[in-house]
Amino acid sequence: MDPVPPGVTTAAIWQGGSGTSLQRVPVPRLGPGETLVRVRLATVCGSDLHTVSGRRPAPCPSVLGHEAVGDVIAAGPGSPAEPGQRIVWSVTVSCGACARCRSGRSAKCTAVRKTGHEPFDGDWPLSGAYAEHIVLPRGTTVAAVPARMPDAVAAPAACATATVMATVQAAGPLIGRRVLIGGAGMLGLTATAACLDAGAAVQVIDHHPDRMALATEFGARPGDDGPVDVAIDFTGSTAAVSAALARLDVGGILVIAGSVAPSPTLAVDPEQIVRRWLTITGVHNYEPRHLREAVVFLDRTLHRWPWHQLVDDPVPLADLASALRPPPTRMLRTAVAP
Amino acid sequence: MDPVPPGVTTAAIWQGGSGTSLQRVPVPRLGPGETLVRVRLATVCGSDLHTVSGRRPAPCPSVLGHEAVGDVIAAGPGSPAEPGQRIVWSVTVSCGACARCRSGRSAKCTAVRKTGHEPFDGDWPLSGAYAEHIVLPRGTTVAAVPARMPDAVAAPAACATATVMATVQAAGPLIGRRVLIGGAGMLGLTATAACLDAGAAVQVIDHHPDRMALATEFGARPGDDGPVDVAIDFTGSTAAVSAALARLDVGGILVIAGSVAPSPTLAVDPEQIVRRWLTITGVHNYEPRHLREAVVFLDRTLHRWPWHQLVDDPVPLADLASALRPPPTRMLRTAVAP
Repeated sequence: MDPVPPGVTTAAIWQGGSGTSLQRVPVPRLGPGETLVRVRLATVCGSDLHTVSGRRPAPCPSVLGHEAVGDVIAAGPGSPAEPGQRIVWSVTVSCGACARCRSGRSAKCTAVRKTGHEPFDGDWPLSGAYAEHIVLPRGTTVAAVPARMPDAVAAPAACATATVMATVQAAGPLIGRRVLIGGAGMLGLTATAACLDAGAAVQVIDHHPDRMALATEFGARPGDDGPVDVAIDFTGSTAAVSAALARLDVGGILVIAGSVAPSPTLAVDPEQIVRRWLTITGVHNYEPRHLREAVVFLDRTLHRWPWHQLVDDPVPLADLASALRPPPTRMLRTAVAP
Repeated sequence: MDPVPPGVTTAAIWQGGSGTSLQRVPVPRLGPGETLVRVRLATVCGSDLHTVSGRRPAPCPSVLGHEAVGDVIAAGPGSPAEPGQRIVWSVTVSCGACARCRSGRSAKCTAVRKTGHEPFDGDWPLSGAYAEHIVLPRGTTVAAVPARMPDAVAAPAACATATVMATVQAAGPLIGRRVLIGGAGMLGLTATAACLDAGAAVQVIDHHPDRMALATEFGARPGDDGPVDVAIDFTGSTAAVSAALARLDVGGILVIAGSVAPSPTLAVDPEQIVRRWLTITGVHNYEPRHLREAVVFLDRTLHRWPWHQLVDDPVPLADLASALRPPPTRMLRTAVAP
């Protein structure tokens, strides 16, 4: 561990497209509630790929990376973490005081900021995990990582796993339910595990044979036909969402989680919604409890599912551009280690 | 009260359109779980008007009428009611044994039958309340009516009020919430009362000035603009549903209850559903607990809201056709008394 907070660190500054440049950046003095973390491992989330491909707008230049694990180096007064802890931290940073925070929707805080999503030339330059160090502002949620959990299993907790916890919660009680999951990427496989763990029978649809093989290894069966009680979409494809809606049995719930970029309109028949007691609900990001639940869930199921298969061996920070330009055959998470 | 069950009764047989004919009909001997009720008052539900206008298919000939209050005349072995009780009864009659019944969706029982919706020439000719007597099969839910409650207040419990109980439950906790209600008919006004009773601030939209005046009397304000947490639609208009969806704040819930006939498609933006954590859910009919809650709610609020204004003075059964051909100025419920 670093004996003292460094005066300067190295960050990969995203310059647009998949272009990044390593730069030396001063480490600020920590204020109240702030935490300095040395990044151990950061994974590349699908939404980072949306960002660099231009499918969604983002500040540029910036330090990307919001799914990571690291060691606490220094803690300002009132920080939620202690030096020496290995932690994961939330994507969203919330004020805790606005109407949305008080109503339990802190991810939609009216003053929300997000790790890995802030302008480099603003007041939070070290906001992303594609760097040697990241500064966590006051209002960030942190969770300690159990000693036995590998970095590559812990890092996705901060986005994929915690979002799955929120998604599965939105689906309601799952014991004995027939669940259809659309997309067998990191979120779909994690949701497969979470739904099986909750007592559901899980079907998965993914056009990629290797992903389907992994879904089968996780315990799902191919989702070819028949009615379901719950459908969860991670594909972001309106066609897939529409097909999932059509599969719902009476009283069924469709949870949409993948549609985070502009998508074609979904056509809904109001009479079917009414007569069949159907529900359509959306989930985006997560609340603090979901990050803690994510770590507990991964720890409890560490040997039940092959979590280690979901993240590739890390590339050095200097090669970040290659991780942001994944080959078409890339299945799940690439990773970066400063 | 009738001293003994009659051997024959009079029913208004619906012949298509708004045509009905009074006929003498034998009263069957009661089997296990069955109940014979002498109808005191039956109201004309909007869905009866959909039926006679041809907007939705229905068996014909049949005895219509599914919102009523009556006196128990005779009870077969295992009937849920006792002779002498004044009761309301459920629209849906369920088997109690199928997967849907066991999962708490008895209104969608795979063998469901409905009062006022069955063919006259089938095995349940006296299924409707536009008659002197109705037979309630095994699997009907009944609720006793408190002595002080007028018939005209009690009758709507069996459809409008119980459906509102289910609808409001689907909207989740309401205390402190901003609620928008579309449609100030019987259901919209009842929902206004239920939401106010639950601690919400209620706005109502209805194009009819007299209905809006009544909504204001119930305690709502006109729903002209601004975000809301909950929107409940009783209009059945896809345009109104779409406008209500656009009014939802982050985390908002749209409950669709009015779209019970073929309607234009509702266009939904999946990205908005996800990013704004929106929920769209449908409600149709209700469960047994909602009928009991409806009677308790009406009794508890008997003097708080002008329930008596919502049902017109009854016309005789022989004039049913006039009640099924309401003038365009008709505001709420017409009623029929055998």
